[in-house]
Amino acid sequence: MQISIKQLAQLLNAEIEGNAEVLVSNLAKIEEAQSGDLSFIANPRYLHFAYTTRASALVVNKDFTPEKPVVATLLKVADAYQSFAQLLELYNQINRPKGIEQPCFIHPAAVIGTGVYIGAFAYIGENAVLGNNTLVYPQTYIGKGVQVGENTILYAGVKVYEGCIIGNNCIVHSGAVIGSDGFGFAPQPDGSYRKIPQTGIVTIANDVEIGANTCIDRATLGTTAILEGVKIDNLVQIAHNVQIDQSTVIAAQAGISGSTKIGRYCMIGGQAGFTGHLTIAPKTKINAQSGVTKSVDEENRFLSGSPAFDYRNQMRAYVLFKQLPDLETRLKNVEDQLRDKHS
Amino acid sequence: MQISIKQLAQLLNAEIEGNAEVLVSNLAKIEEAQSGDLSFIANPRYLHFAYTTRASALVVNKDFTPEKPVVATLLKVADAYQSFAQLLELYNQINRPKGIEQPCFIHPAAVIGTGVYIGAFAYIGENAVLGNNTLVYPQTYIGKGVQVGENTILYAGVKVYEGCIIGNNCIVHSGAVIGSDGFGFAPQPDGSYRKIPQTGIVTIANDVEIGANTCIDRATLGTTAILEGVKIDNLVQIAHNVQIDQSTVIAAQAGISGSTKIGRYCMIGGQAGFTGHLTIAPKTKINAQSGVTKSVDEENRFLSGSPAFDYRNQMRAYVLFKQLPDLETRLKNVEDQLRDKHS
Amino acid sequence: MQISIKQLAQLLNAEIEGNAEVLVSNLAKIEEAQSGDLSFIANPRYLHFAYTTRASALVVNKDFTPEKPVVATLLKVADAYQSFAQLLELYNQINRPKGIEQPCFIHPAAVIGTGVYIGAFAYIGENAVLGNNTLVYPQTYIGKGVQVGENTILYAGVKVYEGCIIGNNCIVHSGAVIGSDGFGFAPQPDGSYRKIPQTGIVTIANDVEIGANTCIDRATLGTTAILEGVKIDNLVQIAHNVQIDQSTVIAAQAGISGSTKIGRYCMIGGQAGFTGHLTIAPKTKINAQSGVTKSVDEENRFLSGSPAFDYRNQMRAYVLFKQLPDLETRLKNVEDQLRDKHS
Repeated sequence: MQISIKQLAQLLNAEIEGNAEVLVSNLAKIEEAQSGDLSFIANPRYLHFAYTTRASALVVNKDFTPEKPVVATLLKVADAYQSFAQLLELYNQINRPKGIEQPCFIHPAAVIGTGVYIGAFAYIGENAVLGNNTLVYPQTYIGKGVQVGENTILYAGVKVYEGCIIGNNCIVHSGAVIGSDGFGFAPQPDGSYRKIPQTGIVTIANDVEIGANTCIDRATLGTTAILEGVKIDNLVQIAHNVQIDQSTVIAAQAGISGSTKIGRYCMIGGQAGFTGHLTIAPKTKINAQSGVTKSVDEENRFLSGSPAFDYRNQMRAYVLFKQLPDLETRLKNVEDQLRDKHS
Repeated sequence: MQISIKQLAQLLNAEIEGNAEVLVSNLAKIEEAQSGDLSFIANPRYLHFAYTTRASALVVNKDFTPEKPVVATLLKVADAYQSFAQLLELYNQINRPKGIEQPCFIHPAAVIGTGVYIGAFAYIGENAVLGNNTLVYPQTYIGKGVQVGENTILYAGVKVYEGCIIGNNCIVHSGAVIGSDGFGFAPQPDGSYRKIPQTGIVTIANDVEIGANTCIDRATLGTTAILEGVKIDNLVQIAHNVQIDQSTVIAAQAGISGSTKIGRYCMIGGQAGFTGHLTIAPKTKINAQSGVTKSVDEENRFLSGSPAFDYRNQMRAYVLFKQLPDLETRLKNVEDQLRDKHS
Repeated sequence: MQISIKQLAQLLNAEIEGNAEVLVSNLAKIEEAQSGDLSFIANPRYLHFAYTTRASALVVNKDFTPEKPVVATLLKVADAYQSFAQLLELYNQINRPKGIEQPCFIHPAAVIGTGVYIGAFAYIGENAVLGNNTLVYPQTYIGKGVQVGENTILYAGVKVYEGCIIGNNCIVHSGAVIGSDGFGFAPQPDGSYRKIPQTGIVTIANDVEIGANTCIDRATLGTTAILEGVKIDNLVQIAHNVQIDQSTVIAAQAGISGSTKIGRYCMIGGQAGFTGHLTIAPKTKINAQSGVTKSVDEENRFLSGSPAFDYRNQMRAYVLFKQLPDLETRLKNVEDQLRDKHS
């Protein structure tokens, strides 16, 4: 789809500098843009690209005055980043998939809202509910009685087990599994294990994003709860009965064991782990690869290490860990000196 | 589905205390139960909920004598937990999916047992065998020549590559991949890699549970073997030619490198890793996030750290690691004292 | 399929020793082979199996002269391993799936090469391009505008988001997700996060292998690039705008944060992690479970630990970490001696 600079200027309320007849058909990074692309410069550090870019047009801040000739047509706006983001959203709106592709499986007792997209080979189980304008990409599985809110996107191959609940404006990426059984087994006298039935659910509030191939187990009883605005990266493990409070972010490959409660506005680093049954105070920050084994009572702490403790103390100890051969030599020197005196 | 307290009492061989006409339609956690729910109290610590719960009925142990009025109808049994588990199993029996949903792909040369469920968009390859009463949820892939036993559940989107074997009474969760190629490449003189063909299989014995998005690679030659009663959590990596012996449990995000053999009754913590070609004695316990780099010859050991060594020694060393700044200060004091004497 | 020793001998240009009329139908490991199997011995350490194996035939090196009677028919060749690998490749060629299985979804505007296999329930989006002889297994998702080269294999359930590019001779294992959104969010004044649109793509060059359930996020703008001959194991996380250079290998469960660039011929151990925006020199080796937090400027380094530093120094420090209780005792002894002298 081609769009003219004039149309864009109207859309963005921008001032045109240069050839207003140019057409663009693509959005691109300033350093990689080709002829026919529209790009933007928001960061002053990138301004020098304006003189070398092959982009046909550039969205820039109003205060940008070129010092050398610029080939690209300029679209001057109040906030270049904001305008570019607006274009991206528009682009996504235009590119939204629509309608019900065949073949797909929709149980007669499922309730489907208006404006919904259902891709081919998607499965919508008995009594499942899909809110208005929700997108269900191909090969996605929505189990029996699952409720999905409005304007939510479930990408290709998401699996949602029976009875789980997903809110509005959520995004769930491909391969994520919502509602698999919690890992609960009762040891038997002969050393084998008996499965503890996992009959709770997972509830995901509004504005949550869940990464590709992330797993969120259903509760044993009750619910594993992901609260409003939580952002979870790829390949994360959330065990049964965990609760993640509002606007907490969890980086890739982190793992939270059963029944642990993470407070609001926390930031969990990649590959970090939590043992079970902990309570973590709001605004806690956990360094990547850390192992949290104790509850955190105080807000705003930053922990590191495995087991994790105060970040600054951990860094100090780690500096000395690296110097251990040197410390041992110093200790040996001291011992030698004392021995010499005795002899 | 609603069921009366009278019916439940008959089923559980329970004594009724309270209104026997009440109907329940759901199972719930005592602290979250609503009107119409049935709950249970097995743990004495939860007994106080009996007086405040909104559940319509409660399964309790025979010896429970309320000290205050209880609104819920009581069902008194010998073992409340056992009775509740029995109800859950019954519930699952009633809710079992049945029949062959369309469209699905069943190769004419596949052999399908009786009482099998095959969900829509499932793929059953040439010469594959499905035992009686096995459930294959939607979008699952059963490659050519795969054998699956009886009463096994493959949840939505499980992928089983050609030739792999799964036993009876197994549960495999969504997104698990059984039989992908082992990671084997021969380095070439120019720095590139040539793939080593991976032509073995994966064999999974009876009563095994495999978590969501877990990967078990096929052997280079021979078999990657998961023995009876092994329980594997989500996002676990099992490399080619690994063997996991009977009733070992492996927590989420752990990884076992190629050709390592883990003995019986081991417990592997979350995010733990093993290098290749190790042999781990039965009943070994590995702490979460540990890295095991050596074989374990003796049974009943508990290892921790990366590289892992004896848990108690690791804990002791770690306590001192945290005190390293303090130790360095003490060493400096000693050095200063000695220097003072010399001067 | 059965094949006679005579046919095999012709194929491999082998000399027959023993019964040339024997038929084989399977390839197997020497120690596990059964009657009807063909096996091989390339490693002299396995030669003793020649006298006990139940295999019907054995591919061996020309210089092998049995010291005891051998039941299996011998096929003597110049290089037993090479000949066996040749048979495996042949086996895979014969077993290659063919044709377009129904039902599948192929958008009318998709471009499909010759000799392509498309399994049932696969989805090929608008304007997607599949090169000649490429195999798309069942339940795979190829988004709008995706380009896949020639002779590439996408196993069951692979998901490739809109616009991504995959080269020739690649192998992508089940459950891998290519092109999911990068994890980018702008913190808002109220503590919530606004999604940063992710409009770049993923480009995968020729001869790349990607493991099961591995995730490669699309770039925010531009491309996440996996260059020629890179081999990535299972459950690996590659974040947005990462670049992995030629013939680098990455073991299972490793994670690379946003915008990090890994050089050529690197070897990344399992469960290792990288923070974002690093540049790692070619031929760097990273130990398993390490955490790389700084760029590596020099080639051929081997790093270990979290945070990672020189492997040998890390090993030396770790030996002393294990001895910390002993070091503390030595320090205490020194302190006691000094105190005694003062008193």
